[in-house]
Amino acid sequence: MIALTRTDIDNMEKLYRINLINSCSGYKSANLIGTQSADGQTNVAVFSSVTHLGSNPPVLGFITRPTVVPRDTYENIKKTGFYTINHIYQDIIRDAHHTSASYPKEISEFDQTNLETKYRDDFHAPFVKGSHVQIGMRYLEEYNLEVNGTILVIGEIVQLHINNNILEDDGFINLAKAKTATINGLDAYAIPQEHARYPYQRPKST
Amino acid sequence: MIALTRTDIDNMEKLYRINLINSCSGYKSANLIGTQSADGQTNVAVFSSVTHLGSNPPVLGFITRPTVVPRDTYENIKKTGFYTINHIYQDIIRDAHHTSASYPKEISEFDQTNLETKYRDDFHAPFVKGSHVQIGMRYLEEYNLEVNGTILVIGEIVQLHINNNILEDDGFINLAKAKTATINGLDAYAIPQEHARYPYQRPKST
Repeated sequence: MIALTRTDIDNMEKLYRINLINSCSGYKSANLIGTQSADGQTNVAVFSSVTHLGSNPPVLGFITRPTVVPRDTYENIKKTGFYTINHIYQDIIRDAHHTSASYPKEISEFDQTNLETKYRDDFHAPFVKGSHVQIGMRYLEEYNLEVNGTILVIGEIVQLHINNNILEDDGFINLAKAKTATINGLDAYAIPQEHARYPYQRPKST
Repeated sequence: MIALTRTDIDNMEKLYRINLINSCSGYKSANLIGTQSADGQTNVAVFSSVTHLGSNPPVLGFITRPTVVPRDTYENIKKTGFYTINHIYQDIIRDAHHTSASYPKEISEFDQTNLETKYRDDFHAPFVKGSHVQIGMRYLEEYNLEVNGTILVIGEIVQLHINNNILEDDGFINLAKAKTATINGLDAYAIPQEHARYPYQRPKST
């Protein structure tokens, strides 16, 4: 085992530290967040921090860094109140990753990639066509994290679209069947091929 | 595609909704959090919500529900200030999952499974022996999420132990090489076999 102290980490070359600390939390979710500004400019961006916060009410959170560069996603959510979360899967990884490029606000990542918008009824934000799980979200609240100035954005699920083939009888969404991606660190995408489910655990009798 | 409205979700049978909403954020990190109470009682518990919050300073967060059942992990962290985050990998999935059973405070999950403590210097909390990434954490701050009463617990990395074989030249930790697990929903564990890394993205010239 290599043992690194906090001083070692603080003294690392910047990119080395970013790679290391981004990998050390384990695998991450791989999602595209879709938004549209009040005047109709669309935006889609890759996020690896979408996290389940609770099922009743159904709420998800994600982390954003509004101070580093202009964050169209965050601004659109704050101004319109709505956004979509769409799973990244094998066929769209390259395009999904490209949305991390820093485009000016007036250029839509939907136009710079093969990713396509899908609109549903009067929901303001665009979904990502073809994604096996597409979630319509409404902004609820946010927390400014004192430690580093990032923001935890929390929203509630208002609609949920799932490919029939990956939804199992007990509500479980089979991510392996959808070839859903997971992210390792900053820039690595993996497609888990299979999984095992384990039963609900009770204490062993002693 | 199956389309579910918010009303559909709110009216679901409870376990169905828990399975569904827990799967819909995508793959999750799979970690064991190790703690020790002030009087020496150890605890280890599986968490799927550990999230990278930032690299400089190196900070990670996780979500806990202190109101549902007694949460030894949270209490120990609050009283002692220290905890460990340890990656779950293929060989320990069954034992890691068993730590979700509800044991009374005076019983250590380390005694009820084949998981073993590993102590380092004078660090108060036990690491999980054999885990390829073992992180020593110090509690920093927490946020009570109004929407559902869960708590985001934030800590800083104070020491980081990594298996030499999985640390690459640029700081990237190769999770596939370590047979690191990722969690789908409440109870499914997958081991991604490989991944592809993609370069840093710049806007396409138009």
